[in-house]
Amino acid sequence: MIEKIPKPVARRLAIYYRLLKEYSKLGLSTISSSSMGERLNLKSSQIRKDLSYFGGFGKRGTGYKVMELMKSIERILGIDQAWHILIIGAGKIGMALVNYSGLSQDGFVVKAIVDADKDKIGTLIDTQLVVEDVRKMGQIIQEKKIDIGVLCVPPDVAQKTINEALKCGIKGIINFVPKRLEVPEDVMVEDVQISLSFKALSFRMVHNGK
Amino acid sequence: MIEKIPKPVARRLAIYYRLLKEYSKLGLSTISSSSMGERLNLKSSQIRKDLSYFGGFGKRGTGYKVMELMKSIERILGIDQAWHILIIGAGKIGMALVNYSGLSQDGFVVKAIVDADKDKIGTLIDTQLVVEDVRKMGQIIQEKKIDIGVLCVPPDVAQKTINEALKCGIKGIINFVPKRLEVPEDVMVEDVQISLSFKALSFRMVHNGK
Repeated sequence: MIEKIPKPVARRLAIYYRLLKEYSKLGLSTISSSSMGERLNLKSSQIRKDLSYFGGFGKRGTGYKVMELMKSIERILGIDQAWHILIIGAGKIGMALVNYSGLSQDGFVVKAIVDADKDKIGTLIDTQLVVEDVRKMGQIIQEKKIDIGVLCVPPDVAQKTINEALKCGIKGIINFVPKRLEVPEDVMVEDVQISLSFKALSFRMVHNGK
Repeated sequence: MIEKIPKPVARRLAIYYRLLKEYSKLGLSTISSSSMGERLNLKSSQIRKDLSYFGGFGKRGTGYKVMELMKSIERILGIDQAWHILIIGAGKIGMALVNYSGLSQDGFVVKAIVDADKDKIGTLIDTQLVVEDVRKMGQIIQEKKIDIGVLCVPPDVAQKTINEALKCGIKGIINFVPKRLEVPEDVMVEDVQISLSFKALSFRMVHNGK
């Protein structure tokens, strides 16, 4: 097993992956860490260090093979496999995620969406998906082999809802609720805080980009 | 003016802000960096260092005054003022953002939404907002004193669309398009990459939380 990896490394790997995908679409076969760094506004030493956690890629002077590195990062990120997603909460954000192409193209496949609202349950989303009753969540998680739950419910029911999902064996959560979830140590949570990006932007605008 | 601030500091300040808001709702008047650190899974020294960029808050042993620190961070983040938002692209994500309460409560006020699709233009969103023609973007930016553009268009028209917005004087961009935008140095861009969070999660799930 690999050693403990600093948390920002995974996100940077995902950024490298996106760039490599672009390069491969353009038909480039090799790429240097310095030109990657220039494109991404990162030091090339940072890129080399991040990649070194996972063994050697590329040779000094010749750069990385685009396809090879892309496939390796795919494996490292765990996106060489399909992940089954359950969207919990059929509000605007939840509904917007159902057909979000940025997910399916990386193997995150929305298998079901649930809600507590009687008026929403039964709503046909596309040929495959109907909003299902949140009370059937356990059964859905089992039957559809759900790996990841995406929480998009109102803040006041967030913890209660996620407790139910955890009882049914969910081990990974993407949390769109602006509230910290309490989960056991072996459960992974990634918070998506849209409003954080807005605040980071206003900060930089107020401080002239500092 | 303040010195150059490391980029993650603004995001952490926004996280502290959210926690302080919670504390203030609970009626707490003081809080120590160590209990904040415990709640946020951060070292208290990190919190003290981040805050020290902006002058002294709190005294050793007595902690921070919740309300005072909250108001200071509000000012530092630039959210003690209202920001006028234009949503560019009335797809699912754009539409979901229009009434996203996480924004308005921090002073990010959606003033308009535009799209190029004739079928979408004219769609009534709520009592105040109608999807407007993207070709009127310049006029809208002027009249509604737009500060920030939120880009939610298809990737292939992203750069072209943002070039238009920049011509009309937009200085801040929240980018939901999974593509890097080229902008002049004095324009700030924050990328919201929903799929990055999914990849960071799959990485941690594959590597058992490492």
